[in-house]
Amino acid sequence: MSFVKEASSWVLSGINSVIQSIDEGEIEEMISMLMEAGENKILVIGSGRSGFVGRAFALRLMHLDFNVYVSGETITPALGPEDLVIAISGSGVTRTVVTQAEVAKEIGSKVIAVTSHPGSTLSKYADKVVVVKGRSKNDRDFDYERRQISGDHDAAPLGTMFELSAMIFLDCIIADLMQRLAKTEIDMRRKHANAE
Amino acid sequence: MSFVKEASSWVLSGINSVIQSIDEGEIEEMISMLMEAGENKILVIGSGRSGFVGRAFALRLMHLDFNVYVSGETITPALGPEDLVIAISGSGVTRTVVTQAEVAKEIGSKVIAVTSHPGSTLSKYADKVVVVKGRSKNDRDFDYERRQISGDHDAAPLGTMFELSAMIFLDCIIADLMQRLAKTEIDMRRKHANAE
Amino acid sequence: MSFVKEASSWVLSGINSVIQSIDEGEIEEMISMLMEAGENKILVIGSGRSGFVGRAFALRLMHLDFNVYVSGETITPALGPEDLVIAISGSGVTRTVVTQAEVAKEIGSKVIAVTSHPGSTLSKYADKVVVVKGRSKNDRDFDYERRQISGDHDAAPLGTMFELSAMIFLDCIIADLMQRLAKTEIDMRRKHANAE
Amino acid sequence: MSFVKEASSWVLSGINSVIQSIDEGEIEEMISMLMEAGENKILVIGSGRSGFVGRAFALRLMHLDFNVYVSGETITPALGPEDLVIAISGSGVTRTVVTQAEVAKEIGSKVIAVTSHPGSTLSKYADKVVVVKGRSKNDRDFDYERRQISGDHDAAPLGTMFELSAMIFLDCIIADLMQRLAKTEIDMRRKHANAE
Repeated sequence: MSFVKEASSWVLSGINSVIQSIDEGEIEEMISMLMEAGENKILVIGSGRSGFVGRAFALRLMHLDFNVYVSGETITPALGPEDLVIAISGSGVTRTVVTQAEVAKEIGSKVIAVTSHPGSTLSKYADKVVVVKGRSKNDRDFDYERRQISGDHDAAPLGTMFELSAMIFLDCIIADLMQRLAKTEIDMRRKHANAE
Repeated sequence: MSFVKEASSWVLSGINSVIQSIDEGEIEEMISMLMEAGENKILVIGSGRSGFVGRAFALRLMHLDFNVYVSGETITPALGPEDLVIAISGSGVTRTVVTQAEVAKEIGSKVIAVTSHPGSTLSKYADKVVVVKGRSKNDRDFDYERRQISGDHDAAPLGTMFELSAMIFLDCIIADLMQRLAKTEIDMRRKHANAE
Repeated sequence: MSFVKEASSWVLSGINSVIQSIDEGEIEEMISMLMEAGENKILVIGSGRSGFVGRAFALRLMHLDFNVYVSGETITPALGPEDLVIAISGSGVTRTVVTQAEVAKEIGSKVIAVTSHPGSTLSKYADKVVVVKGRSKNDRDFDYERRQISGDHDAAPLGTMFELSAMIFLDCIIADLMQRLAKTEIDMRRKHANAE
Repeated sequence: MSFVKEASSWVLSGINSVIQSIDEGEIEEMISMLMEAGENKILVIGSGRSGFVGRAFALRLMHLDFNVYVSGETITPALGPEDLVIAISGSGVTRTVVTQAEVAKEIGSKVIAVTSHPGSTLSKYADKVVVVKGRSKNDRDFDYERRQISGDHDAAPLGTMFELSAMIFLDCIIADLMQRLAKTEIDMRRKHANAE
C-alpha cells in the first residue's frame, strides 16, 4: 500500500477517536441551539483552515434554509441578542475569532465555541463549548493572524487533525439536522424547482 | 450512541473506501508532478466546497514552500507552459473550473484534475486525472455556479463525500511530500525563526 | 505639483465626464428598480476590480437594510423571478458574470448591467443597461477569468477608468437612496443602538 | 441635473481636495519605498471598504510585477525584515489591521500606513504615515471588525470619502510607478505574449 493510503487510514482512525470522544451532551445542546435558531441569524467565525471548515458548514446550513452568514465576507449582518455565533478555533486564541466572540457576547448573542481547548480565551466568551480534540497546543503563537505574518505555521503531519475532525463532525451535525427537519434530497429539489 | 457519532463512523468508512479505491499510479504521478514543480507556479482551482478543499490544500503547500496560488483570490499569477494547475471538481463540469483548465491547456501548463468523473469535460483538459469517487452525478445541473443562483443544491447526506474524501486525500499527499522533502515540524520552525 | 497629484486631477476630470455622460433615464430606472426591491434579494456580480467595486456597493446597500448578496462569496442565495441582479463588467464579456446573468435571466430575475458596452453579451441578458464609459475594448481577451490565467492584463494608465467611475457613480446612487429612504446617519445609529 | 450627478460633482471635488492636501514628501517617500521593494514581498492590509481599495491596488501592483500579497487571502507569506507592509485604515484603529501592523513591526518589516489619523494606533507601528483625509472620527467604534458585528456602520454620505480618495490616490501612485518603471501597455502585452 502506498504511504498516502496508509496515512489516510491512520488519519481516519484518528478522526474517529476525536469524534467519538466528543461529549454527547455538548452535541445535543449544539443541535438544540441550531434548531431553536429559526429565522434568527447564525454567524460562523473562523480563520485559516478553520475558516474553510466554517464556510463549508455555513454553505450546508444555508442549503437547509438557515439564515446563516460567514464572518470576513462582504455581507455580514449586525447581530442581536437573539442571534447565534458559531466560533471555530482549535487553539481558541486566534485573535479575530476571539475579538468577534467578545463583541457578540457584549451584544448578548449566544456563542458556541468549537475548540480543542475548553480553557482557552475563546471558551470564556462562549455560552456552550463543544470540545473537538486534535489541536495540542494553545499559546500566543497559534493565533492564526499572527502566524500568517510571522510564518510560524503548524506544519506537523497531524497539525490539522482538529480541522479535519471538525469538518466531518459538522457535516454529521448537518445530517442530523436534515433528519430532524425532515428535509430529504427530494423535498429540497422539489422546493427549489418550484421557486424557479 | 448519538446519530451524529453513528453517522460519522459511516462517513469515515465511506471516505476510507473512496481513498483506498484511488489508483496507486495516479497518486504517484500526482506526487511526481508536485515534486517536479520546483520554483514553478502551482494554481489550485475549485468552486464551492471543492474550493474550500483546494484552499486548505494550497495553504499546506505554501507551508512546504511551494509557489502556490488559489484561483479566485486577488493575487493570481499569469501561467506559463512550465506551471502546474490542480483543478478540483467532483462533477467535473463546474464552469469556472472548466474554463480555467481550458485556458491553462491552451497556454501549455500541466493540468491535474481531481474529480469523480474521468469522462467529464474537466478531464478532457487534464494531463492527469486522479479519480476520487463520491460524486455520483455529473450533468449540467451540477455546475456549481449555475446551482448557486438556481438554488438546486446537492443536499443528499452523502452529497459531500467527494469533498471530504478529497480533503483527507490531499492532506495525506501533503504528509507524503513532507517525508520526501524531509521537512519536519522542527526544521520548519527553525527556518522561520531564522527568518525573523 | 507632483505627477501623482497632476494625474489625480486628470483622472477626476475623466471620471466626471464619464458620470455626466450617463443617461439620466437609466439612472432613474436603476434607482426605481432598487427602491422596488423591498425585501427581495439583490445579488451583485463582478470579477476582479469590478468585483471590488460591486462589493463596496453591496456593503453600502446592506447598511441601508437591503437584502443584498455578493456573487462568489460563501453565502449566495438561490434567486427567484422577483429578485434583482446587478452585474458589473466594463467589457461586458467576463465569462462568470455573463454566465450568472444568463442563469438569472432563465430564472426570470431582473438584471441590471453596469457596463461600458451596451452591445456586449452581458447586455443581452439585461433588462436594463446602465452605460458607464471608460472601458474602450470588449473582446474575448478582456474576459477577466481568462486574463487572470493568461496574464494579459489591461495595464493602460486609464485601463481602470470604468471601475473608478462605477465606484463613485454607485456611491452616489447610495447617497440618492439614503435621501429617498430618509435614512440619516442619526437614524441608523439609533436603530442599531436599539438592536444592541 | 439629477441628484446623482450633482452628488458626484460634489464627491469628486471633495476627493480632489483630499488628494491635493496629501504631503508631497509623504507621496515621494511612499513611491521610493515601493521602487526599492524589488523582489521583496509587499503585503497589503485593510478591512471592509479599505480592504477592497487595498485589493484593487494590489492587483495593479501585481500587473507591474511586484511580489505582492493581500492579507486575509489564503496565500499570505511570512514576512521578513526586508519586506514592506502597506496598511490602509481611515480610522487607524481597525483591530486586524493594527494587529498585523504590530506583528510586522516586531519582525522588522517596513510599514506604510495610509490613514486619516497620523495619531492613531496604526500610525504608531508605521515607519511612514501617508495622511489621506476624509475619515473624521477615530474611536473604538470605528474598528471595522467590531462594527461588522455590532452593526454600527458609518452611514454618513461622506463616510466613504477616505476610501474613494485612497482608491484614486493609489491608482495615481500606480500611474507614477508605470512611468518610472517605463512599463507601457505595449511592453506588458509583449512580455506576456512571450510567456505564452
